[in-house]
Amino acid sequence: MIHLYTGKGKGKTTAAVGLCTRALGHGFKVCFASFNKDTDKYKYNEHDSLRKLGAEVISFAKGHPGLDKSLDPNKIAEDANIGLQFLRDKISNEKIDLLVMDEILIAVRDNFIPESKLIEFIEDKPTDLELVLTGRGATDGLIEKADYVSCIECVKHPFQKGQLARKGIEF
Amino acid sequence: MIHLYTGKGKGKTTAAVGLCTRALGHGFKVCFASFNKDTDKYKYNEHDSLRKLGAEVISFAKGHPGLDKSLDPNKIAEDANIGLQFLRDKISNEKIDLLVMDEILIAVRDNFIPESKLIEFIEDKPTDLELVLTGRGATDGLIEKADYVSCIECVKHPFQKGQLARKGIEF
Repeated sequence: MIHLYTGKGKGKTTAAVGLCTRALGHGFKVCFASFNKDTDKYKYNEHDSLRKLGAEVISFAKGHPGLDKSLDPNKIAEDANIGLQFLRDKISNEKIDLLVMDEILIAVRDNFIPESKLIEFIEDKPTDLELVLTGRGATDGLIEKADYVSCIECVKHPFQKGQLARKGIEF
Repeated sequence: MIHLYTGKGKGKTTAAVGLCTRALGHGFKVCFASFNKDTDKYKYNEHDSLRKLGAEVISFAKGHPGLDKSLDPNKIAEDANIGLQFLRDKISNEKIDLLVMDEILIAVRDNFIPESKLIEFIEDKPTDLELVLTGRGATDGLIEKADYVSCIECVKHPFQKGQLARKGIEF
């Protein structure tokens, strides 16, 4: 089935990580792939834990030109599409039970990956693969394709009071 | 800070589990306490994974009389309050960095624990303890106390088409 976590509230990536944690407890083979996150520059503590539990953690298109002006948007788009193709090959060659594509909805929203290519990915995926897509701004076409859609609304967030992201909590 | 995951969508407990997974990756001391879940009868696969990563996982007031008619609501209420007191003692005697009280908002909504007692717990907790509360139907008083409030709306869920809960995904 297809799971979609979208909306502006805290909890999209976090819920995907939680779902991996649960699935790994059940013995599922899990792959967690992030898009547009600079995993070389920043340490995402959840990745270490997921690896410790046996998940494969990969990162594509490291960073977002909107946050890091030194990045070339064309290069990021190219890397994101290479990532999508890599995962396409991976799920057809290996038995993966749960694949997370973290922040892929941002990659689509910001035109690094065409929506049509992600829809094609979904249509061609093995039927028993659980696929989790996260990120703000899910398109209607992707919502239509999904079985689970949770929209996380931000009712309150300390960022609104100027609090910076904290280790162990936001990353 | 106080984190609150509420709303009718999938992802409340899941996000709390994800937050623990991240915090454990950062070396935080984590305690995950569930309320009104029958952990003797059902296997929650996320608990095994969290234990493997070093979290303490505890369960109070096992089950919900609304789901299991054989349970005595008074006994469940008593157990929930014993749990609350147990955690109160625990966080004052041990250095815990992150405490999850999973489904505690249901325990308050269904009058097993008075809202005033949970607010008192929040007011008395060590200031540097990150406290995560999950469950539907958060009260205004608790929302007022929280720093993070994410409301997870259910846009789509396969339960609506009659799909039952699945191993590794819902539990």
